[in-house]
Amino acid sequence: MQDSPRILTKYRNQVEEYLQQISFAGEPGLSNIIQYHLGWADKYGNPISSFQGKGIRSSLCMFTCEAVGGLTLQSIAGAAAIELVHNFSLIHDDIQDGDEERRHRSTLWSIWGVPVALQVGNYMRILADLSIYNPINCYLDPDILLKSTEILTDAYLETVEGQYLDLSFEGRADITISDYLDMINRKTGALISCALHIGSIAGTKDKLVIEGLARLGRVLGIIFQIRDDYLGVWGSEKLTGKSFGSDIRRKKNSLPIVHTLQEASNIDRGKIISIFSKDFVTESDVLWVLSLVDKLKTTSYIDSLAEMYASKAMKELEELNIERTNKSAFEELIDFLINRQT
Amino acid sequence: MQDSPRILTKYRNQVEEYLQQISFAGEPGLSNIIQYHLGWADKYGNPISSFQGKGIRSSLCMFTCEAVGGLTLQSIAGAAAIELVHNFSLIHDDIQDGDEERRHRSTLWSIWGVPVALQVGNYMRILADLSIYNPINCYLDPDILLKSTEILTDAYLETVEGQYLDLSFEGRADITISDYLDMINRKTGALISCALHIGSIAGTKDKLVIEGLARLGRVLGIIFQIRDDYLGVWGSEKLTGKSFGSDIRRKKNSLPIVHTLQEASNIDRGKIISIFSKDFVTESDVLWVLSLVDKLKTTSYIDSLAEMYASKAMKELEELNIERTNKSAFEELIDFLINRQT
Repeated sequence: MQDSPRILTKYRNQVEEYLQQISFAGEPGLSNIIQYHLGWADKYGNPISSFQGKGIRSSLCMFTCEAVGGLTLQSIAGAAAIELVHNFSLIHDDIQDGDEERRHRSTLWSIWGVPVALQVGNYMRILADLSIYNPINCYLDPDILLKSTEILTDAYLETVEGQYLDLSFEGRADITISDYLDMINRKTGALISCALHIGSIAGTKDKLVIEGLARLGRVLGIIFQIRDDYLGVWGSEKLTGKSFGSDIRRKKNSLPIVHTLQEASNIDRGKIISIFSKDFVTESDVLWVLSLVDKLKTTSYIDSLAEMYASKAMKELEELNIERTNKSAFEELIDFLINRQT
Repeated sequence: MQDSPRILTKYRNQVEEYLQQISFAGEPGLSNIIQYHLGWADKYGNPISSFQGKGIRSSLCMFTCEAVGGLTLQSIAGAAAIELVHNFSLIHDDIQDGDEERRHRSTLWSIWGVPVALQVGNYMRILADLSIYNPINCYLDPDILLKSTEILTDAYLETVEGQYLDLSFEGRADITISDYLDMINRKTGALISCALHIGSIAGTKDKLVIEGLARLGRVLGIIFQIRDDYLGVWGSEKLTGKSFGSDIRRKKNSLPIVHTLQEASNIDRGKIISIFSKDFVTESDVLWVLSLVDKLKTTSYIDSLAEMYASKAMKELEELNIERTNKSAFEELIDFLINRQT
């Protein structure tokens, strides 16, 4: 199995330590649930150490800050804020999708019910906002703090628009690849771009570098989501927590289905639509869709799409005025993002 | 019927006009739903003019700014932000409570489903954050903008804690009046205090005045919520949109029930608990609870509690260094808050 690239390992402990310091609520009950979601406690509040996601967004924020000449201390509050916004989104996503498991653990709503989970998500969003104003940021220019808040808010606005589009695509057979790319650019690209953007403004005033990194982040986000959609169908259950064909069983209009619907004959398209409009998709339905997806060479298409964005990322990277060694670390990350199994 | 006090009528058009300017989303579908919620469109997106709530929070913010010597233009962005945060809370509340109607209209989730309503709520929260950074605020000191964001975030943090407590009180028979007051201080007091706080920092630098107004806001919030809980049981359906005994039928652990549970005999308390643990409360259950509430003089208790907080508000007001005419306007508001029928 592929090793994690250094960008994704180097900052994890530091981010986690900082998150542990700031993730407390005025109500012990709320704190427990936050601790559970972040993988530090079981549902009774007993300390555990569990699998907590990859922390891609926070790591990217801190690495970017260092890569442009800043100190990690200058980006940690922003990195944590982005990680919390991301986790807040996950909590609400699980409610929206009715998912009972995430990262091999029960989701918040499935333990504490929708009303409490919804509230805990909102609370986590506020912790994100508060992180920016944490005293750890005292030596950062107030203009940078204001700008960071603006970038985070704008990114989150786009994220919600993307999530809304994603919901509105459900059950539709006319979604084009271009609609899909616009949707994931907002749903996933915006927040990953924000990570690089906030990291870079904390470390440099060079506008060209800042803008180049924000653009690079967009592309990384798109690559990330394309792979996510791939893993949603062909991922290993052991690694992703999702069974083979999972997104088909869940009737998700993700990239494999968008491509298949686009390429299928009218008869096959009609058959997918009728399968996806059922209350429960049977295993033979899943197998039939998978065989169609296979026939239409959807995996090759997804590979070539990911490769195209990887080249785009490499081109952005090439033009960036940052040190060679940092470019290599980004290259290593791009390679990881298009091949990851988890 | 009681007239609305001038604080609540003077700024409504101005706030609404400003909200109409800023309440657009990058997705037309999202915009339509926001317009619907704010009462400017029907569910198909056709323009209408509907009943839109009292706008207490935004009006208080703008009045406070004027009362301390500021211009309304200095507080409108903050006022709108608070109004949007409040409306965001309402959208999520309706999901949590499963309420199908608000203000005599179908709630968002009951039309567009929980996933979309949840997302629209989140979007409205972001519009609130963006309002603070609206160019209309360009002549305000960046420090005041930063401070406004902090106050709004802190207030919203408390609000969510209060809402969480409110949820955690459900089905419990051991909630004391003091638990209840702590809960509503956070759930309702924090955001109304925030309205006066943000309004005052936009208009003055006088710390004593700012702190006094923030404290006054807390008390106004508590008075508001006590009356809300009263109206939840004894309000007129025509005016509030809720039927007589509504909160009992909904098994809400609001002030009338908290007081009744505290005062009831063990046998009666047990009977309330068993009624509230049923899936459906019958009309004869509601009548029985109402007769018990009546016997225990709960309405007199609620009146005296509201009067006590009204005196507290008057005392805060007395000590404030603002013009007599503005004090009168606040007095008129307090009188309205303890007697309102809607």
